[in-house]
Amino acid sequence: MDRIVISILVANYSGVLNRVSGLFSRRGYNIDSLTVGTTEVEDISRITAVAHGDELVLEQITKQLKKLEDVIAVEALPNNASVYRELVLIKVEADASQRADLVSIVDIFRAKIIDVSPTSVVIEVTGDEPKVNGLLSMLDGFNIIEIVRTGLAGISRGLNSLNKKNDNH
Amino acid sequence: MDRIVISILVANYSGVLNRVSGLFSRRGYNIDSLTVGTTEVEDISRITAVAHGDELVLEQITKQLKKLEDVIAVEALPNNASVYRELVLIKVEADASQRADLVSIVDIFRAKIIDVSPTSVVIEVTGDEPKVNGLLSMLDGFNIIEIVRTGLAGISRGLNSLNKKNDNH
Repeated sequence: MDRIVISILVANYSGVLNRVSGLFSRRGYNIDSLTVGTTEVEDISRITAVAHGDELVLEQITKQLKKLEDVIAVEALPNNASVYRELVLIKVEADASQRADLVSIVDIFRAKIIDVSPTSVVIEVTGDEPKVNGLLSMLDGFNIIEIVRTGLAGISRGLNSLNKKNDNH
Repeated sequence: MDRIVISILVANYSGVLNRVSGLFSRRGYNIDSLTVGTTEVEDISRITAVAHGDELVLEQITKQLKKLEDVIAVEALPNNASVYRELVLIKVEADASQRADLVSIVDIFRAKIIDVSPTSVVIEVTGDEPKVNGLLSMLDGFNIIEIVRTGLAGISRGLNSLNKKNDNH
């Protein structure tokens, strides 16, 4: 099954998030990740939801989402014409003797160490799933204490915007 | 009002996201941002919710969240002992003549250009809110086409983990 990334512009009420997540759960669509953040337009938030499914599932979700109150625009991001990024924080147990090894792994993945304690290190990495998973597999020999992932954010290439699409319709 | 960042470990069912967002909306707590991603433990996801309020609101939310089905652990991140990061994608209209200016702004903020078209540029930046807002204000003279924010992810400093806390109780 393909990864489906859906961008949803919504009026900035907490209620609409509940309606969107309710639609996914009632229909049995499993959400891999979901992010909500503000946008360039005041009072409008953007939800990025990632699910797995085929064309039919995608069509159903999109149609249902458009019917929800406070949903302004819905778009499935075109897979071959979008960029995707996720931010992941990884806390690893590491004393001074292990730190040099960690630093070289972090450098290879262009990740960053954003916190150090005598016994731990927090790594920040951004990228699409393959890069993040690549880093995680390189950290296999270490004791990973905690992983926090934001979920995927996506944006289409070129001058298109979801807001503009909304204006046209 | 203070920013409240709450980490919630949940069993990996889409239904629990709906229950969590429903709790916020029913109680009238406005969520600034919300992210959901997988963790180091299979079938367990971690939600980071950001809201504004005082101690009392925080206590109420935490207590209510703990009662929800499929919620494994809840913790308000200690503001002075946690690191916070958000990933933001910014699409800016820019032709060849404007690109050099953009590149120097991007360098100052240690951001990255992750896509270029003849008429547009997509910038990726990570940081806490002040840094992201700083970059956005430097881009004021440009035509910003689209902003996608993942919402805040947060992790406590040192060896603590939300999962371990759960084991102890």
